Amino acid sequence: MTSPLDRIRIVLSHPSHPGNIGAAARAMKTMGLSRLVLVNPKHFPDGEATARAAAAADVLETARVCSSLSEALAGTRLALAVTARRRDLSTAIRWPRQAAAELVAGTAFGDVALVFGHETSGLSNEEVALCHAPVSIPANPACSSLNLGAAVQVLCYELRLAAEAPGVAPANEGEPARFEEVEGFIAHLERAMVKSGFLDPEKPKRLIPRLRRLFARTRLEKEEVAILRGILSALETGPYKPPGQNVERRE
Amino acid sequence: MTSPLDRIRIVLSHPSHPGNIGAAARAMKTMGLSRLVLVNPKHFPDGEATARAAAAADVLETARVCSSLSEALAGTRLALAVTARRRDLSTAIRWPRQAAAELVAGTAFGDVALVFGHETSGLSNEEVALCHAPVSIPANPACSSLNLGAAVQVLCYELRLAAEAPGVAPANEGEPARFEEVEGFIAHLERAMVKSGFLDPEKPKRLIPRLRRLFARTRLEKEEVAILRGILSALETGPYKPPGQNVERRE
Repeated sequence: MTSPLDRIRIVLSHPSHPGNIGAAARAMKTMGLSRLVLVNPKHFPDGEATARAAAAADVLETARVCSSLSEALAGTRLALAVTARRRDLSTAIRWPRQAAAELVAGTAFGDVALVFGHETSGLSNEEVALCHAPVSIPANPACSSLNLGAAVQVLCYELRLAAEAPGVAPANEGEPARFEEVEGFIAHLERAMVKSGFLDPEKPKRLIPRLRRLFARTRLEKEEVAILRGILSALETGPYKPPGQNVERRE
Repeated sequence: MTSPLDRIRIVLSHPSHPGNIGAAARAMKTMGLSRLVLVNPKHFPDGEATARAAAAADVLETARVCSSLSEALAGTRLALAVTARRRDLSTAIRWPRQAAAELVAGTAFGDVALVFGHETSGLSNEEVALCHAPVSIPANPACSSLNLGAAVQVLCYELRLAAEAPGVAPANEGEPARFEEVEGFIAHLERAMVKSGFLDPEKPKRLIPRLRRLFARTRLEKEEVAILRGILSALETGPYKPPGQNVERRE
């Protein structure tokens, strides 16, 4: 049987220190995780990463390197973003224990991901917006920045505990949509809004981030995406006119 | 008000890599702990420790350096030993969550300690025997060795959670004995056993470790130590003979 831990991707976006990549690999392996994804690492592969990985060199060898977070998340059904900062458009922040339970429950449908940002600057707002919800590790307000490898260790520790004692029902009844299905819908929605004149691409304001947040919070099901896109398509082509009838708009 | 976290000593015994000392200091500070004790560190102070400590250099500056674990534990009422290996004479192993709750509850009476061993060889059996119980971090059996800094991070994370949500009553009703009071009693007991001929110092076998284990498990109270030493003293000097009476030993 596959362990839920085999379906959890640990994504490091723009890691700058190879030592931290190695430390993350070791942290993962000690907790039974193996799927490391690197988005634009500054140096990789690298001898320091291998040295710090110790007995987890195999995690580095099988790591995937991607050029964007979207690429790293393709195929996932749930993605949570680890962040220390409060965000403008934040959805409810998860603590590690709750996040781990959600991720393990989410593996019932396929891959899920936990995303860590750059050592100093963290994740960009655009990256957080690609995820369903933020996760924060409780910390000393006067010194809240954990080392990247240490943060990966804490979250993977909670993931291991959650995998050993599952008990949280999946948040949705239906099959969750894949990352790229949701992205396809968002892109469709954006095109439709522009075409209709509702969204001015020159002055987009915060409209798309707000909509992203809304749909991230609901964790769209596969069928819901199909329904929403059907609605969009119908709205784009105008009201349906059955042959031989005159449809009048009612006030 | 003092936080329970201010009464918890993080003891690193014989750390060999200064980078790990720095990582431990950072892990502690991010979780709100500050009392680092080093037993015979190979290199300290050291530039690499300071670099890895990042914003936690103050934890290094106020760290105590001791020449033995006994010295590091003097004044504590409860000490738990972090260990990955099963031990011959192991008492019930605590998981980090349970250990953190016990330690935080233990701070009601004074200082407590969490002891980490050497990066490769861990704690010696003698060091574990000076503590009340072992703590293990659940891990992948095929790769169970966490980096020292990462292990400190996981335990300090659990300590922070436990301090934020206490709710475990202290294990004992009375005031726990101090480390040195229990050691004084063990030494007294050993002398008495030798003097009586029960313990052959040339062939001590596992007698002392077994007794240590027994008393570690009970977590002796201050008054209990006094009672036990009183009993020992009485036994050493022979039966009490009230003046003017002949006391006969009954079979």
